[in-house]
Amino acid sequence: MITTDICIIGAGPVGLFAVFEAGLLKMRCHLIDYLPQVGGQLSEIYPQKPIYDIPGYPEVKAQELVDNLMDQIKPFKPTFTLGERVDHLAKQEDGSFIITTNDKTQVHAQVIVIAGGLGVFEPRKPALENLEAFEGKGVTYMVKNPETFRDKNVVLAGGGDSALDWTIYLAKIAKRVTLVHRNETFRGAPDSAAKVFDLASNGKIDLILSANLKEISGNGKLETVTLETKNKEELNLEADYLIPLFGLSPKLGPIADWGLNIDKSAIEVDTRDYSTGVDRIYAIGDINTYPGKLKLILCGFHEAAIMMHSAFKYVYPDQKLSFKYTTVNGVNAF
Amino acid sequence: MITTDICIIGAGPVGLFAVFEAGLLKMRCHLIDYLPQVGGQLSEIYPQKPIYDIPGYPEVKAQELVDNLMDQIKPFKPTFTLGERVDHLAKQEDGSFIITTNDKTQVHAQVIVIAGGLGVFEPRKPALENLEAFEGKGVTYMVKNPETFRDKNVVLAGGGDSALDWTIYLAKIAKRVTLVHRNETFRGAPDSAAKVFDLASNGKIDLILSANLKEISGNGKLETVTLETKNKEELNLEADYLIPLFGLSPKLGPIADWGLNIDKSAIEVDTRDYSTGVDRIYAIGDINTYPGKLKLILCGFHEAAIMMHSAFKYVYPDQKLSFKYTTVNGVNAF
Ligand SMILES: Cc1cc2nc3c(=O)[nH]c(=O)nc-3n(C[C@H](O)[C@H](O)[C@H](O)COP(=O)(O)OP(=O)(O)OC[C@H]3O[C@@H](n4cnc5c(N)ncnc54)[C@H](O)[C@@H]3O)c2cc1C
Ligand SMILES: Cc1cc2nc3c(=O)[nH]c(=O)nc-3n(C[C@H](O)[C@H](O)[C@H](O)COP(=O)(O)OP(=O)(O)OC[C@H]3O[C@@H](n4cnc5c(N)ncnc54)[C@H](O)[C@@H]3O)c2cc1C
Repeated sequence: MITTDICIIGAGPVGLFAVFEAGLLKMRCHLIDYLPQVGGQLSEIYPQKPIYDIPGYPEVKAQELVDNLMDQIKPFKPTFTLGERVDHLAKQEDGSFIITTNDKTQVHAQVIVIAGGLGVFEPRKPALENLEAFEGKGVTYMVKNPETFRDKNVVLAGGGDSALDWTIYLAKIAKRVTLVHRNETFRGAPDSAAKVFDLASNGKIDLILSANLKEISGNGKLETVTLETKNKEELNLEADYLIPLFGLSPKLGPIADWGLNIDKSAIEVDTRDYSTGVDRIYAIGDINTYPGKLKLILCGFHEAAIMMHSAFKYVYPDQKLSFKYTTVNGVNAF
Repeated sequence: MITTDICIIGAGPVGLFAVFEAGLLKMRCHLIDYLPQVGGQLSEIYPQKPIYDIPGYPEVKAQELVDNLMDQIKPFKPTFTLGERVDHLAKQEDGSFIITTNDKTQVHAQVIVIAGGLGVFEPRKPALENLEAFEGKGVTYMVKNPETFRDKNVVLAGGGDSALDWTIYLAKIAKRVTLVHRNETFRGAPDSAAKVFDLASNGKIDLILSANLKEISGNGKLETVTLETKNKEELNLEADYLIPLFGLSPKLGPIADWGLNIDKSAIEVDTRDYSTGVDRIYAIGDINTYPGKLKLILCGFHEAAIMMHSAFKYVYPDQKLSFKYTTVNGVNAF
């Protein structure tokens, strides 16, 4: 059994920064994440893309921000359980909790912070017979490192922002990009759609509308993607990669059963301290909701700071919290 | 008359970042600050000191953060009126405002954002007869650039954090530091006080307790600081600089008369959008208050983001706001 002051579910940017705010108040943290690496959406979905709205960073690559957060929290020696999903939560008589993961790791903590983002997310997959056989062998649901696709034949499928976005991005580095979409219009941002139509009319990409993925084949690895066009014709595309971008299907998962107030897959919280209504359980970052909520990284940072000041009373019931500036007080490592 | 969408009172870190959040929503900003430079407390009080709790920055000098914020907002071409105090606010029939400064500059705006921090602040000054004559000639109330004091004889006076803090810092670079305090104990952080007592007992600084500033003299510039000790004796100190650090006396100033709800010199706001209760006037950063409020820079950043999404309806009454990630949409300069 791992013992800590605060157990943070989710090691996305918000869960990571929460460690820092806890540390300033001398509270220790253990983090659990289902993904094999820290960083949440940033490391998993868009590590190489620049973010422009982190205050004080005119531009920062997502992975760079995660790395900096890891540096920032290092003095407070957080511990991690990665690649495991939090499944079960048991309240103890003294008010504390024991958390259990799908791998039976147990963590005992005074306070639970749910920083679970979109939840445990799975890509929505196309209905193709032998799909699994090609996963990791040409079929991929996320662009982790765009360099993988340099000088390759890439087929993207989808009509949302990711599909448009990655089509525009990969057009610059892939050998050939084909975007396949089942409709004539896109759900994504109008200006991105306009850019994609532009690329197509300039011959920079192939755009195939009103078509569906029908079959994939290859010898040990993906070689051909077969489409069905609107005239019910079959079309074979030479392909090193197929990237279906039909969205992630995030699932709150077991968290949904913990008696919290859930509104559209998000946990309702009180903006005074981002508490959930269940004693000693807080929710911060993309996973919470309140009037005016914006799913922005910078908002999660604020929520983490406020929340830790509220949690202090559970970890140090006999102490009065004294608020000090880091500039004045420094960062006192554990 | 300057015309803008949003007039921001206060060009501290929070007012500056608000420009960025406004810009993402295509709203233009004009900022007014009483200080001659941007950056608020950071540039005025502690430009050279490191801050440790800006998310993603394990350490950043205050002035560096301000410079980065200025870079970040550059695409949105904010305009500035510096060195002028906002004195007057007049509501127009159509709901917009005309702001007037002490220098009679006028700004017409749809929305007012008060990011006034501690208000217009003045240092508390010691009661010394010829004090004004030596201001800027040895007497200074703020350490803007510590290098000014290298190899100089410096007398500091005060018992709070700034006095302790700067004593510790300047001990390393000044020729000689003397700290004068009227009591035997300090109001500042106990560990800082301990450090100061340490420095004194190791002969690194002179610590004179239970003493008061009595007189200052010099020929055209400060040369001698005279103290009265607890035994009513006079003590003359050779001094190139006298830094009385008796605190800033921040004044909300004219803002107090605008019909806003004020609680202990702070403006009460609704956490849903950081609005003040007076239509089209918002308050963000150190100047606002709400249950759970922390006077942290990172909290002001969050407030700025939320607030601008609420203000959008006044600037673009006929448009629906569509929320987009900077990573996906980029930063579209004006
Ligand atoms: C393409 C894209 C671009 C974006 N651009 C921007 C931008 O420019 N600016 C911005 O501010 N935001 C942007 N965002 C949003 C930003 O990524 C999120 O706001 C941010 O990731 C939220 O951080 P978080 O820590 O709350 O959650 P996440 O980053 O989602 O991390 C949550 C973590 O919790 C884990 N988890 C959930 N449930 C469990 C469980 N039961 N057990 C174990 N682990 C669990 C997940 O595996 C995940 O790693 C963008 C998002 C996307 C997809
Ligand atoms: C020594 C010290 C150390 C600190 N350390 C930290 C730290 O480690 N971390 C942290 O998060 N915070 C720290 N802080 C607090 C931080 O500086 C403030 O939270 C921050 O400055 C607030 O930003 P702001 O933009 O709201 O206001 P301010 O920075 O106060 O700026 C407000 C501006 O408004 C102007 N103004 C006010 N009224 C008027 C008017 N009527 N007309 C024209 N101009 C006006 C003022 O001149 C000022 O420039 C520290 C503060 C101090 C003093």
